[in-house]
Amino acid sequence: MFGCLVAGRLVQAAPQQVAEDKFVFDLPDYENINHVVVFMLGTLPFPEGMGGSVYFCYPDQSGMAVWQLLGFVTNEKPSAIFKISGLKSGKGSQHPFGAMNLPQTPTVAQIGISVELLESLAQQTPVASAAVSSVDSFTEFTQKMLDNFYNFASSFAVTQAQMTPNPSEAFIPANVVLKWY
Amino acid sequence: MFGCLVAGRLVQAAPQQVAEDKFVFDLPDYENINHVVVFMLGTLPFPEGMGGSVYFCYPDQSGMAVWQLLGFVTNEKPSAIFKISGLKSGKGSQHPFGAMNLPQTPTVAQIGISVELLESLAQQTPVASAAVSSVDSFTEFTQKMLDNFYNFASSFAVTQAQMTPNPSEAFIPANVVLKWY
Repeated sequence: MFGCLVAGRLVQAAPQQVAEDKFVFDLPDYENINHVVVFMLGTLPFPEGMGGSVYFCYPDQSGMAVWQLLGFVTNEKPSAIFKISGLKSGKGSQHPFGAMNLPQTPTVAQIGISVELLESLAQQTPVASAAVSSVDSFTEFTQKMLDNFYNFASSFAVTQAQMTPNPSEAFIPANVVLKWY
Repeated sequence: MFGCLVAGRLVQAAPQQVAEDKFVFDLPDYENINHVVVFMLGTLPFPEGMGGSVYFCYPDQSGMAVWQLLGFVTNEKPSAIFKISGLKSGKGSQHPFGAMNLPQTPTVAQIGISVELLESLAQQTPVASAAVSSVDSFTEFTQKMLDNFYNFASSFAVTQAQMTPNPSEAFIPANVVLKWY
């Protein structure tokens, strides 16, 4: 039903089914993984009204499994790219794989897919840094950050006549900021 | 031999074989595509010493096919994620699909894979903006940009005593910039 692909590696199309509604892919050497693609094979859709929540699971320093919600796949959006390279030091989130005690190997992480009601998925919030779609707004983000700074800094601009005499305070000519901007 | 996946859509595993060594996937509604994953299915490796160059082909305003080299897949690196959303206004590059005259529909682009000698691939330069690995340096890039600005602006910092009298020039207190930084 599901496939999983680590960018640069061979595709995996045979997850381990750890419960009726739970599927797990192993990710060996996960420290060297940046992006993971999770997708439906197209052979079998989700039952009506259901979808899959996608989790990343990795062992913390003491070997305990830390689970983080990456996002979702549904019949309407049957594939997604996730960035996991920024997650390795993040905190765990609530997850439905609790009782499974997957064996933890220091270098092996997992992708877990839990089939759930769409209403249940709608109440879950994935970790923001996993969304590759945010990457698309890279230029917009940079531009917004610059706009934000320029507006912020400009609001403090003063002329010499407006300055309170203070020999130690340093000033930057506003046209230097404008030029850089 | 190859699969192709548009992020958010169903996987495609049956390319059109347009020549013995050339394969093409259609990408409908390509204006709404950000990322494309190209991967080997794992059923059949490349012949020894060979790999695949991956091209994005889209129709320009006059309906002519524009081809851009995205990158490569090989037996050693059998999958890759490419960002195509920035390429739609780019220039075409040399490509091996020249004589094929693929039918161009205004909203349909293509992914083309050409099986070639690895030595030939090594001499080809993909368009830089297609590499999703560059995405990983997002944080570093932003930080560098900030460092760059802070160093640049700070180098212009003056105290009131150092200012040339000029009532119209606006100044920004340096601690405003430091605070934002």
